[in-house]
Amino acid sequence: MTAPENWQQRLAAATESRGRLCVGLDPHPGILQAWGLPDDLSGLAGFAGTVVSAFAGRVAVVKPQLAFFEAHGHRGLAILEQLTSAFRQAGTLVLLDAKRGDIGSTMAAYARTFLAPDGPYAADALTVSPYLGVRALAPAYELAAETGAGLYVLCRTSNPEAGWQLSGEPTLAQQVVTDCRAVNAELGSAVLGLVVGATRQLDVELPGTELSVLAPGFGAQGAQLGELDQLYGTVAPAVLPTASRSVLAAGPGVDALRAALADHLAQLPARADGQEREQA
Amino acid sequence: MTAPENWQQRLAAATESRGRLCVGLDPHPGILQAWGLPDDLSGLAGFAGTVVSAFAGRVAVVKPQLAFFEAHGHRGLAILEQLTSAFRQAGTLVLLDAKRGDIGSTMAAYARTFLAPDGPYAADALTVSPYLGVRALAPAYELAAETGAGLYVLCRTSNPEAGWQLSGEPTLAQQVVTDCRAVNAELGSAVLGLVVGATRQLDVELPGTELSVLAPGFGAQGAQLGELDQLYGTVAPAVLPTASRSVLAAGPGVDALRAALADHLAQLPARADGQEREQA
Repeated sequence: MTAPENWQQRLAAATESRGRLCVGLDPHPGILQAWGLPDDLSGLAGFAGTVVSAFAGRVAVVKPQLAFFEAHGHRGLAILEQLTSAFRQAGTLVLLDAKRGDIGSTMAAYARTFLAPDGPYAADALTVSPYLGVRALAPAYELAAETGAGLYVLCRTSNPEAGWQLSGEPTLAQQVVTDCRAVNAELGSAVLGLVVGATRQLDVELPGTELSVLAPGFGAQGAQLGELDQLYGTVAPAVLPTASRSVLAAGPGVDALRAALADHLAQLPARADGQEREQA
Repeated sequence: MTAPENWQQRLAAATESRGRLCVGLDPHPGILQAWGLPDDLSGLAGFAGTVVSAFAGRVAVVKPQLAFFEAHGHRGLAILEQLTSAFRQAGTLVLLDAKRGDIGSTMAAYARTFLAPDGPYAADALTVSPYLGVRALAPAYELAAETGAGLYVLCRTSNPEAGWQLSGEPTLAQQVVTDCRAVNAELGSAVLGLVVGATRQLDVELPGTELSVLAPGFGAQGAQLGELDQLYGTVAPAVLPTASRSVLAAGPGVDALRAALADHLAQLPARADGQEREQA
């Protein structure tokens, strides 16, 4: 009996075959309007159908933002359940962006909901928030270690209100890095990764490629995919760049969305293994 | 035209007439089992029906933990929608415990979902997480200022993994206090309150009764309601104590739950206005 693949291995396999890009699926009112869809359940269902048609099996990772499904009530979340299932069946990894963080039985509920194979929103990875302590996330990272799921812990975000993440000595962001490394070492598996925004100079010290780094902010938010190596230096090979608006802006046509995806992949710097260039 | 009541005014009115207690509604698998209910949708619906029967219109505030509804998929959240609506129609304030925190359009989606009068889970108050910065919560606190809703920002929690909230100078927790005061001053309304756990000595400096303080951890988690004045000192009048397990443990009988509620209210120290004693 072999151990199941861990998140880093699963992510590497996905990005090697489909290119190293995570497409953010953010059906906010603005994108629904831009696609000529109403800001209601039917519009959300239309968005979901289109992105599944355009990207399922063609992109390594998608990152649905749960808030935009939840905003349509429980029926909006039924659409998320279907979308998640459709992407996973096609071999695209689903990273749910929900930034959850709690303690005890509540954190255990989040873990089962989003990471258990039979959970209602069973996904491959989840974003989590560390304010209650990285160790409070234990119910989630322990389950993830069993199932091969990943967790991305908010570390250093690029929004202008997040300056306090650099307060303290060591800084908050640096404490998150340290705690995540310690947890992974104990688990013997790189379950925890970090969210480190892409639109600024790197101001947190990252341990080379040891931790997977989810990097929102490419495309419309300012950073360019071609700058990935410059922005992240020796950490760059561990970075999963995420683009949302700059890809979705090409919609609602499926062919146009696929062309935007190919264009984004072509902008990525080649990795040593050259896989991405071949894909692009 | 008079300004709408703000959250502190609404909370004061509710606690003066029904006693100063928030009952946490945490339908985790353990409580469903203890109540002889299956850990599925039918069990969740049974739990919801019972707590509405027992407490609607009889308790000042209820605090449903969203995670335990979400764990049952989108149909679990349909039950939360119904529960929230039933409590509010009976005049009980609903404080949703979801600890959300994000930026920009995502935070705006959370605000609409949980705080807009026509949102799917329209509630009276919401817990939020400050890791992305208290100012990143602006879409929520700006909407709350308009609607008379409240937000409770995680500040100093009592779980053992939360030690880093005391790191830095000023500490993280203290920075949250400072930022929340500044926001309320700008809004001209005490929209933001703080979550400060009850099971430890107060190790964050709070500005008297200026900010509402949500205090989980009474009852089963260790702190006793009768100790409220000792635990919080001059801040005590601003504290909304929360009990969950110690109340719910009396279920599933409606009469037994009401008796447990009365017992909890009787333990509260009298306030200057004496209202609570009369209620108890």
